[in-house]
Amino acid sequence: MASMSAVNSKNLMLFSGRGYPELAEEIGKFLGVAPTPTSSYTFANGELFVRFEESVRGCDAFVVQSMATQINEWVMETLIMLDALKRGSAKRITVVVPFYPYSRQDKKHRGREPISARLMADLLKAAGADRILTVDLHTAQIQGFFDGPVDHLFAMGTLAKHVEEKYGDRDLAIVSPDSGRVRLVERWSDRLGGCPIAFIHKTRDPLRPNEVVANKVVGEVEGRTCVLVDDMIDTGGTITSAAEMLMEAGASDVVIATTHPILSDPAAKRLADSPASEVIVTNTLPLPEQAKELEKITTLSIAPLVAKAIWEVFNDGSVTTLFGGLS
Amino acid sequence: MASMSAVNSKNLMLFSGRGYPELAEEIGKFLGVAPTPTSSYTFANGELFVRFEESVRGCDAFVVQSMATQINEWVMETLIMLDALKRGSAKRITVVVPFYPYSRQDKKHRGREPISARLMADLLKAAGADRILTVDLHTAQIQGFFDGPVDHLFAMGTLAKHVEEKYGDRDLAIVSPDSGRVRLVERWSDRLGGCPIAFIHKTRDPLRPNEVVANKVVGEVEGRTCVLVDDMIDTGGTITSAAEMLMEAGASDVVIATTHPILSDPAAKRLADSPASEVIVTNTLPLPEQAKELEKITTLSIAPLVAKAIWEVFNDGSVTTLFGGLS
Amino acid sequence: MASMSAVNSKNLMLFSGRGYPELAEEIGKFLGVAPTPTSSYTFANGELFVRFEESVRGCDAFVVQSMATQINEWVMETLIMLDALKRGSAKRITVVVPFYPYSRQDKKHRGREPISARLMADLLKAAGADRILTVDLHTAQIQGFFDGPVDHLFAMGTLAKHVEEKYGDRDLAIVSPDSGRVRLVERWSDRLGGCPIAFIHKTRDPLRPNEVVANKVVGEVEGRTCVLVDDMIDTGGTITSAAEMLMEAGASDVVIATTHPILSDPAAKRLADSPASEVIVTNTLPLPEQAKELEKITTLSIAPLVAKAIWEVFNDGSVTTLFGGLS
Amino acid sequence: MASMSAVNSKNLMLFSGRGYPELAEEIGKFLGVAPTPTSSYTFANGELFVRFEESVRGCDAFVVQSMATQINEWVMETLIMLDALKRGSAKRITVVVPFYPYSRQDKKHRGREPISARLMADLLKAAGADRILTVDLHTAQIQGFFDGPVDHLFAMGTLAKHVEEKYGDRDLAIVSPDSGRVRLVERWSDRLGGCPIAFIHKTRDPLRPNEVVANKVVGEVEGRTCVLVDDMIDTGGTITSAAEMLMEAGASDVVIATTHPILSDPAAKRLADSPASEVIVTNTLPLPEQAKELEKITTLSIAPLVAKAIWEVFNDGSVTTLFGGLS
Amino acid sequence: MASMSAVNSKNLMLFSGRGYPELAEEIGKFLGVAPTPTSSYTFANGELFVRFEESVRGCDAFVVQSMATQINEWVMETLIMLDALKRGSAKRITVVVPFYPYSRQDKKHRGREPISARLMADLLKAAGADRILTVDLHTAQIQGFFDGPVDHLFAMGTLAKHVEEKYGDRDLAIVSPDSGRVRLVERWSDRLGGCPIAFIHKTRDPLRPNEVVANKVVGEVEGRTCVLVDDMIDTGGTITSAAEMLMEAGASDVVIATTHPILSDPAAKRLADSPASEVIVTNTLPLPEQAKELEKITTLSIAPLVAKAIWEVFNDGSVTTLFGGLS
Amino acid sequence: MASMSAVNSKNLMLFSGRGYPELAEEIGKFLGVAPTPTSSYTFANGELFVRFEESVRGCDAFVVQSMATQINEWVMETLIMLDALKRGSAKRITVVVPFYPYSRQDKKHRGREPISARLMADLLKAAGADRILTVDLHTAQIQGFFDGPVDHLFAMGTLAKHVEEKYGDRDLAIVSPDSGRVRLVERWSDRLGGCPIAFIHKTRDPLRPNEVVANKVVGEVEGRTCVLVDDMIDTGGTITSAAEMLMEAGASDVVIATTHPILSDPAAKRLADSPASEVIVTNTLPLPEQAKELEKITTLSIAPLVAKAIWEVFNDGSVTTLFGGLS
Repeated sequence: MASMSAVNSKNLMLFSGRGYPELAEEIGKFLGVAPTPTSSYTFANGELFVRFEESVRGCDAFVVQSMATQINEWVMETLIMLDALKRGSAKRITVVVPFYPYSRQDKKHRGREPISARLMADLLKAAGADRILTVDLHTAQIQGFFDGPVDHLFAMGTLAKHVEEKYGDRDLAIVSPDSGRVRLVERWSDRLGGCPIAFIHKTRDPLRPNEVVANKVVGEVEGRTCVLVDDMIDTGGTITSAAEMLMEAGASDVVIATTHPILSDPAAKRLADSPASEVIVTNTLPLPEQAKELEKITTLSIAPLVAKAIWEVFNDGSVTTLFGGLS
Repeated sequence: MASMSAVNSKNLMLFSGRGYPELAEEIGKFLGVAPTPTSSYTFANGELFVRFEESVRGCDAFVVQSMATQINEWVMETLIMLDALKRGSAKRITVVVPFYPYSRQDKKHRGREPISARLMADLLKAAGADRILTVDLHTAQIQGFFDGPVDHLFAMGTLAKHVEEKYGDRDLAIVSPDSGRVRLVERWSDRLGGCPIAFIHKTRDPLRPNEVVANKVVGEVEGRTCVLVDDMIDTGGTITSAAEMLMEAGASDVVIATTHPILSDPAAKRLADSPASEVIVTNTLPLPEQAKELEKITTLSIAPLVAKAIWEVFNDGSVTTLFGGLS
Repeated sequence: MASMSAVNSKNLMLFSGRGYPELAEEIGKFLGVAPTPTSSYTFANGELFVRFEESVRGCDAFVVQSMATQINEWVMETLIMLDALKRGSAKRITVVVPFYPYSRQDKKHRGREPISARLMADLLKAAGADRILTVDLHTAQIQGFFDGPVDHLFAMGTLAKHVEEKYGDRDLAIVSPDSGRVRLVERWSDRLGGCPIAFIHKTRDPLRPNEVVANKVVGEVEGRTCVLVDDMIDTGGTITSAAEMLMEAGASDVVIATTHPILSDPAAKRLADSPASEVIVTNTLPLPEQAKELEKITTLSIAPLVAKAIWEVFNDGSVTTLFGGLS
Repeated sequence: MASMSAVNSKNLMLFSGRGYPELAEEIGKFLGVAPTPTSSYTFANGELFVRFEESVRGCDAFVVQSMATQINEWVMETLIMLDALKRGSAKRITVVVPFYPYSRQDKKHRGREPISARLMADLLKAAGADRILTVDLHTAQIQGFFDGPVDHLFAMGTLAKHVEEKYGDRDLAIVSPDSGRVRLVERWSDRLGGCPIAFIHKTRDPLRPNEVVANKVVGEVEGRTCVLVDDMIDTGGTITSAAEMLMEAGASDVVIATTHPILSDPAAKRLADSPASEVIVTNTLPLPEQAKELEKITTLSIAPLVAKAIWEVFNDGSVTTLFGGLS
Repeated sequence: MASMSAVNSKNLMLFSGRGYPELAEEIGKFLGVAPTPTSSYTFANGELFVRFEESVRGCDAFVVQSMATQINEWVMETLIMLDALKRGSAKRITVVVPFYPYSRQDKKHRGREPISARLMADLLKAAGADRILTVDLHTAQIQGFFDGPVDHLFAMGTLAKHVEEKYGDRDLAIVSPDSGRVRLVERWSDRLGGCPIAFIHKTRDPLRPNEVVANKVVGEVEGRTCVLVDDMIDTGGTITSAAEMLMEAGASDVVIATTHPILSDPAAKRLADSPASEVIVTNTLPLPEQAKELEKITTLSIAPLVAKAIWEVFNDGSVTTLFGGLS
Repeated sequence: MASMSAVNSKNLMLFSGRGYPELAEEIGKFLGVAPTPTSSYTFANGELFVRFEESVRGCDAFVVQSMATQINEWVMETLIMLDALKRGSAKRITVVVPFYPYSRQDKKHRGREPISARLMADLLKAAGADRILTVDLHTAQIQGFFDGPVDHLFAMGTLAKHVEEKYGDRDLAIVSPDSGRVRLVERWSDRLGGCPIAFIHKTRDPLRPNEVVANKVVGEVEGRTCVLVDDMIDTGGTITSAAEMLMEAGASDVVIATTHPILSDPAAKRLADSPASEVIVTNTLPLPEQAKELEKITTLSIAPLVAKAIWEVFNDGSVTTLFGGLS
């Protein structure tokens, strides 16, 4: 016989980095697929090692990594997992990074800087990634940094639903903490039926461009419950001072809604001290210890959204249709 | 003798596409280097042909192309010029596109769309480009689409200087025609000493997302000379309706400042009919015939800026220092 | 469960550029698959946009584009469609270009010229093409320009069958209009049972190499029905002057057979005025308006051949066996 | 209908180079798949030609080539077969080279040398290989030279089983002929239950680094049956002089075990004259004529191991589990 | 000090493969640069080794290899030399192959064949070649197989000068031995002032396509000295039978002119027995032993042409201008 | 004027990562070039940022990074520096990593493992590295992982000179702590005039392959000063237990010599407690705090060797000649 045929089946396998294994577990539960048993450890000098305990030959691999603090460890672990999958003959490899690393360095602000967000795309590609699945990129243009398909999901649906249910009967204003995300705020306004929008205008002295000399609320916020919207909160300085300015400008209440809760020190303290009454986040990143105790933080799970997207990717369905996200 | 040595000199050559040869000529005058004589023609079925009339071996090539209307012709001509330079042994090839083609399609707005701005970067690379030099990208992230150095120059200095000299004694407000470019407006405000900023808020019905149901000026414009700022004007609908709204909102005057004057039909007519008293543009693109007759258009030349950047690139100087642009 | 399996099916989808949608429609009818609904439009400054109206995830995509006049538009549209398919997660992408663009610039005729046919292969690859399917390349070596499989189909079977049925009872001679395609003419002669072959010899002055100083028929044509064969007719100058020379040399009749009817101006007029009694072409390209009215033009459809090839590619069958073409 | 679906089956095809077709035949028998009929011939000037006599579209191709003497012929034939498979639309291509070519040039020993083992990996990749399957690489690091999966099988199981069955009741010592393969000898010792190990220490004068001035057995060999182990025997000088030294050092008997029997001249004569009583090899390479007559050579077949590995690769099974080899 | 500057000089180095070292020596004499001392040898199993005896860091390397019979040895040696140069930090590497290997397999003649000429270009690129310099490619399209500059020189000037000087006073006809090279013959005719051209028409039975059933001279040869022109002579069957046919058709004399004298067995005998009175070749390849004794062979040196091209490439001069070749 | 020429000078710039800036400073002193002022910092979530304070256009960049503990931070910082240099138009980029990261994971020990040392080479390439300069790779084959030149320097000269001067009058034995580095020990023996060599043989139970069941000294050590040689010491377990075994086996004294002092916890304590009288290391890595206090550690500087190599690379000199290292 000159050849031998067999039915070609496909096989979804889930892999979890150590950045936030609980999220991978939760995604796995929605899919009915447990993360593949994996030996991962860190040598004394910091070198990482990964070995999968089951054969990965021919599988459709989804590598879930949450790019939590100590982010370089998790980036490197992801790259090493990709290399092991590539050399272990996985058929297709999708990197699932709900929070895309280095997304803020998405352009050169001045000369002789890196574009680290593009570098990340190149590193993932070099290590073996065929596709990327992510949530709320800092700028949507980052999709174009990767030479391959990027499934870009939006958490706005999840966050806005919560806002609508809880605050839908109040007079709302949607506010951006700076001039760079007014478009996002406009989208929230559309989603919530057209309420007013505003932003904080920072004035700089052209001779000292890195120094803000004055802040000012532009837009109508007086007497309103202000929903302060941003894609991420890192140390929390910008968002909490925005909350204060809004209160000074006559807002009746401030609610913060953000997708990625990095919450580096001293974010937890700043949020605790802030006039904001609620801080709504998703679990694309694990909450740091100090933040876990903060009662005003509400965490909504991103796992159902990510799990459905993985399901559609595996089954060649449309991600666009299901989530209103971009496929 | 086992080897032969020679002094290694470098040689700048300028090449001009047919999109707007006057700009290349003007850049060349500043540099003291005429564009290389080139045979370019279009066959009956639209196929393009290019042949350089002088040897290009070992040269440091700068290919200037203005991506005017009929943009695909000029993109393709640029790619063919690059191929001819690569195969003719040019040492380094810099593509000079003052207006970057397809820069508005810099992300997928919905599923199953291209990211054409990234595609352009890939095509230029595939054809042989080592570097790109451009002015005022639609979004700065496009720099990251190219796998190599991008010199990104800013026309704001040129445009703002004109505004300052002519309108510096008035009460100004800087205004963005939509929510997506408020950051740019903030930068103008810093440059002009901290004047107020504003933008037009478009409200959409979530069930009909492509349809604007209401427009509203957010910010303080009453009694002020409003400088409406955008990176490009295509058919002019957004910017002229913004000008009208500003007048309705009590602006004393409207001046438009934009880098790239695409001015597709019916932009010339719309600008003529608009309450804007002056439209300040650069010559990154040639003015269409109808626009040339419009007295309210002031064209500032981008050639000195581009020529200086080419000079620094050739001499390994710092573009950052000289222009306040990004290197 | 550590993994999830599913049957792996494959899914043929057809996509049509706007170069000549009727051909894609016709191919689709043979396959029983309609072209995927697609939003394609051209912005005022010439930028193109494409969006597919159905999910393309995991499909085996065949992009049919006829590279008609305004060829750069269609090349660019094809590249943009490829980018959208790649980013939309199509599994495999075959570009179906019955007429390969820029195929005449397949080498450097002199120094500092591009090899545009190779450039096209590189651009298609850069944009995402995995395979190319084409008909009657200007030179078969172009197959080697693409880094991947090229299915190269021959229209000679279709054209020669028509000649045989209509003129098989006459004394035929097969004639090449110049010295470069005598091999093709020899193949026609073999196909038609061994009739004589001839070509037109152009004499040039070595000091003026682009100028023909004399033409001469080499080979036996007197009293014969001459079948003038070429891969394409562009402006028709060469082929119609060849027809005239053949009549002068004593041919009893001239019939023209060509695969690609570019027929740029003034081809229609020249063919009308020519002594050739019939001009046999295929529909790899749409006939221009003026040519449609020409009664002596006979158009044979290439759609069955292309459809069968797509079918075999999809089903991993042999293209060689079915068509006598190269797989 | 907007698309057409079909079940996606996979199809194993076996291809044999001319280096040692009997091995491919034997592997094929274990698999129940005969090598695909292929026209292969060598032109008068040495150029090779290959054409497959059956369609290879969409197949899972395994190209078996034994890199016998005249090794460049077989390397080039393999590359040409890969090119033909790639252009013939094979879906996946695995190169099966039981003996990896140029594996000894795996690093630069001095400046201005090639790393030919890496070059081989790059050439195979450039020609179209997706995967490599090989046996007992000279150094395991060669796996990392290829940008893709390498299945690395070990012949030690096969060879050691024979030694155990035949000599298991004697006092054994495992010996490396030089200082570079002591690790391998340690692995044999573990496999055979912990017998002593030894190696030959070569002393060089630092001023004449390529010249050995003295040899010395390090380790305990007196009165023992010494199993001299190496990955390959080329001209046999090192291994036979090691055998002699061991006898001089009091060994009771010497048995040689090696995977790759290159056996270039004068290896056969040297082995015949050597005190070694048995030379155990596998058939990763064909035995040269002179060696075939040598009674003390025992050839064990590698075909079952390779066939099982191909089977697992085709079926996405684990190569690790089955063979104790690396997957 | 933050940096250190130095003058940047460039350094031409010549490297010779073992295919035909006399040619490299001769080229070197014209340049005044001896080939770099190199250790090259072949191991017993056929593996090749190369080491350069002088530092190659930063040099402009020209690797001269004549692709003589045993062509795979020389291809492989060239690739290994390239790897050693790349890893030894040569700055730019030009491969000088006066006879391009596998140039006849420049397309798929039927399905499932390789395009070996493209493969060669890919292998050279993968091993480190930046540029190729070659003479009289079998088809000029091969230039487009390489992704980089190809300097394509023509030997016609050298050969035709000899013909003109020796036979310029006779009535000449230029003849192609088959239908595929009539264009070349036309170029010779132009070069020699417009003499008649002819070719041999081979008739095949469509049912047995590889079998020629009849040959026939097309064109005017009676009473003329026929110059039979081809790019190479391999076993000499086609060209000598063409010479016979021309004599039968009334030619007064036959002279053969060809660039590449492969002259595989039995070419020397065939040429000796042939009615051709002179066989003019160049030394792109070494003459085989049997051919050296043939008095009717005239060898013209290609070394001056190649040396001048190398000189211009090193000095960034125009190859086009000097040689009438393509740059 | 159609072009403009300038002398082409070259410009060495040194860049220092934060892994061990003192080493870069020291190398810079030997070169007379200070590291370029650089802004490097770590954001709260671990993201790194780098900006060079001087123009890097056209420079010959040498990026010195010591891959100290917290190795992933320094790998990532290096990659980001490379990206910034590439985008800032550096002409050539050499990565100087005296200790190559992840060098121990240079092959798959079992299935489904990464080859992280190859991954590092790919990441460096993807980020922009043209060349690598390193010292004492764990295995020399790692050179072949990088697609470009690798300058591989040897510290043996530096270390052995110290041993010779201090212990040259004693009876020495050179000892490898395991079976994998006996070749290295043989090289030391040659360098020191031919003294005896030995190694520790570890016996494993085949059923528990990761567990050593017995250790044994193979070779002659009694009454000798044993120089225990290895390329690196991590936690120090292997080397200190080897020292103990040697003393038990009758060694008169033990001296440890190693290139890379990782010295992760509890190496310092183990070395303090060990019978080894001196531990000789180089400064390819910074000594950890605990180790600094250890009097028996002697640190020799690698900076002169690295500085000379950089000098030769910049000046296109031979690294081979100067250092006896591989170029």
